Amino acid sequence: MTLAELQALDRTDPLAPKRAEFLLPEGVIYLDGNSLGALPKRVVARMEQVVQAEWGQSLIKSWNLHGWIDLPQRVGARIARLIGAEPDEVIAADSTSVNLFKVLLAALELRPGRRVIVSDIDNFPTDLYIAQGIAELRGGYELRFVKKDQLEEALDEQTAVLMLTEVDYRTGYLYDMARLTRLAQQKGALTIWDLAHSAGALPVQLNRHGVDFAVGCGYKYLNGGPGAPAFLFVARRHQEATRPFLTGWMGHQAPFAFVPEYLPALDIRRLTVGTPGVLSMSALEAALEVFEGVEMEQVRQKSLQLTDLFIELMEPLAARYGFQLATPREHHRRGSQVAYRHPEGYAIMQALISQGVVGDFRAPDILRFGFTPLYLRYEDVYHAVQRLEQVMQSGLWQEARFQERAKVT
Amino acid sequence: MTLAELQALDRTDPLAPKRAEFLLPEGVIYLDGNSLGALPKRVVARMEQVVQAEWGQSLIKSWNLHGWIDLPQRVGARIARLIGAEPDEVIAADSTSVNLFKVLLAALELRPGRRVIVSDIDNFPTDLYIAQGIAELRGGYELRFVKKDQLEEALDEQTAVLMLTEVDYRTGYLYDMARLTRLAQQKGALTIWDLAHSAGALPVQLNRHGVDFAVGCGYKYLNGGPGAPAFLFVARRHQEATRPFLTGWMGHQAPFAFVPEYLPALDIRRLTVGTPGVLSMSALEAALEVFEGVEMEQVRQKSLQLTDLFIELMEPLAARYGFQLATPREHHRRGSQVAYRHPEGYAIMQALISQGVVGDFRAPDILRFGFTPLYLRYEDVYHAVQRLEQVMQSGLWQEARFQERAKVT
Repeated sequence: MTLAELQALDRTDPLAPKRAEFLLPEGVIYLDGNSLGALPKRVVARMEQVVQAEWGQSLIKSWNLHGWIDLPQRVGARIARLIGAEPDEVIAADSTSVNLFKVLLAALELRPGRRVIVSDIDNFPTDLYIAQGIAELRGGYELRFVKKDQLEEALDEQTAVLMLTEVDYRTGYLYDMARLTRLAQQKGALTIWDLAHSAGALPVQLNRHGVDFAVGCGYKYLNGGPGAPAFLFVARRHQEATRPFLTGWMGHQAPFAFVPEYLPALDIRRLTVGTPGVLSMSALEAALEVFEGVEMEQVRQKSLQLTDLFIELMEPLAARYGFQLATPREHHRRGSQVAYRHPEGYAIMQALISQGVVGDFRAPDILRFGFTPLYLRYEDVYHAVQRLEQVMQSGLWQEARFQERAKVT
Repeated sequence: MTLAELQALDRTDPLAPKRAEFLLPEGVIYLDGNSLGALPKRVVARMEQVVQAEWGQSLIKSWNLHGWIDLPQRVGARIARLIGAEPDEVIAADSTSVNLFKVLLAALELRPGRRVIVSDIDNFPTDLYIAQGIAELRGGYELRFVKKDQLEEALDEQTAVLMLTEVDYRTGYLYDMARLTRLAQQKGALTIWDLAHSAGALPVQLNRHGVDFAVGCGYKYLNGGPGAPAFLFVARRHQEATRPFLTGWMGHQAPFAFVPEYLPALDIRRLTVGTPGVLSMSALEAALEVFEGVEMEQVRQKSLQLTDLFIELMEPLAARYGFQLATPREHHRRGSQVAYRHPEGYAIMQALISQGVVGDFRAPDILRFGFTPLYLRYEDVYHAVQRLEQVMQSGLWQEARFQERAKVT
């Protein structure tokens, strides 16, 4: 496709107006929204409001006056719409890792006779680490971390929990959530899905697929800001039996009664712990307003077009310079990113970033490019590939390599 | 003392210039900094910087370029100076509750044969709840929660951990940290001190008293903003043996190596978990800059003068209207707040707040007044008591009581 054709696509793109809702740096093509989403303009205004008017002027009264106390539920309800859940099944709190700790502990408690946790050895490390911490804490668990193609046979009658990240952070591989959930449940296991790379990136259907628990991240495709609060999902059928162990006052039935005995809240709030981080949670709330009126099917359609286009434009470079596509070509197995393997991946990415195309590198050899339909144009994809071609042709990446070696020695 | 005398005191107060570093609402006397600290002006500028320039313009590069990745350690080091710890013994992370969960689990692991956790039944509830959650998780523990005057005899050779909040959130009672730590350690137990109401309020000497672990809150006397990140302290002698169970990627030795096996960081970072909340942690960092050049002994001296003055001015009201002082008169047993019991405490506090004097109420009958030497004047204390007198004389508090009843029915 020519640049003119792509510009024409941008003109008719129903999501095109959304780009104006973001503050983007001049001259940069940002292909790293899968790691840190760009800044929505309304966050700027909201932060001024919450810092200066709410905290500064109303001070402690803001907990009620400005609804700070309900932020975890309000933000959760906004996320619920994006992931196929009911508003009362999702709550914003803590970090993804801490939330996984909570739901994994709770899920194991619901399968007391079973001692196996199954996951993908290529899962994002924090997920595997959290499972290791829990296995040490509780004792007697087997961590069955296997390659993707061994997952199905790893599930058996001993499996308590199958925990997976829906989209592989390195390759962009998209799991079949419906099938894996069904297979796990057929063995009597519970499922925990980490939606770090899918919430806000593609339509997620937790309830349609009967998922038990989920966690996810606020700072990637949801654009909530660096280290934004995370979220967790508990299917309504499990909420009453879901036992909290990280029992903080915000998860109490009556936090302001200040009684010495812990009694879990009757709803999903029982999985909150300490005082919510109002500043960062307000930023996330404002960022989620950008999704108002957006259907995730629309986002998905554009995302696939963007990644298709990138793969297509990269074909000649891949052949000429040895980039190996690590992302599935099949739409139903692809998230909203494209990854290439290259032995000089680190240096190439450094050089590309210096030219204003921001992707990232994941050891040992992965160049990652994230595609965020709310603020990315078709023509950006064209220019990104063009600049990569220049980096390769000009040998600029070799300079980056030498600089890196100089730093190491 | 007369108003003129108090105004003279304000003119010679060495901390007086600090007040100008805060944005305070016009006409309000804010006596609730023990619940949510006021807004330091530099936080406003820092939030604009971190949102618009760092996140907005530098995006993902800010993790290195703007030092986001080191925020937990940088903020921890700033807090360390205020609590008598070394910079590498404190780290900012998560909420107070989550941090207590981490250090209590770790402390129990260091005393494997012992099965008793001792605390004050009047401790802030989240501390007691966290201990309850851990006792359920690990099984076989006795929670020995007793009244303050029974604490010493509650300590025995079975005690694994004594956990206390240094300043009682209701009454402002200040524990003898040196003595209690010594008594616990004489029995072979470890100590965890919650500094929620002492960090930034009075000089804390963790290392001088040989404290083992501590946690604390960023949003009270440290003025970090609503729900600011909390902190934790691990004495250097325990760091290598302190075992993390909430094992997230930020606590890994090499988070960006993305290896599947968890290996704890060699320093206190092993007690961090997920991605740090950059927005809220930046606010806290800026707020802590207000303490530069401030000695905690100075703060303490003014704090005691403010609370002495308040108690003195309240004497006639206490006698006339039945306010019962709940805070110790002895300096060495008093934190930076003053509490009175009154059967109509709730209605009285509502009426007082409506008159621009903001304290708070804690069930069943406590009116709390927090005194924050960095932004409070001596003359504020005078006016606060005057307005309370007007509230009582005018019967305004009775209106508040009727309104409250009307709401309930």
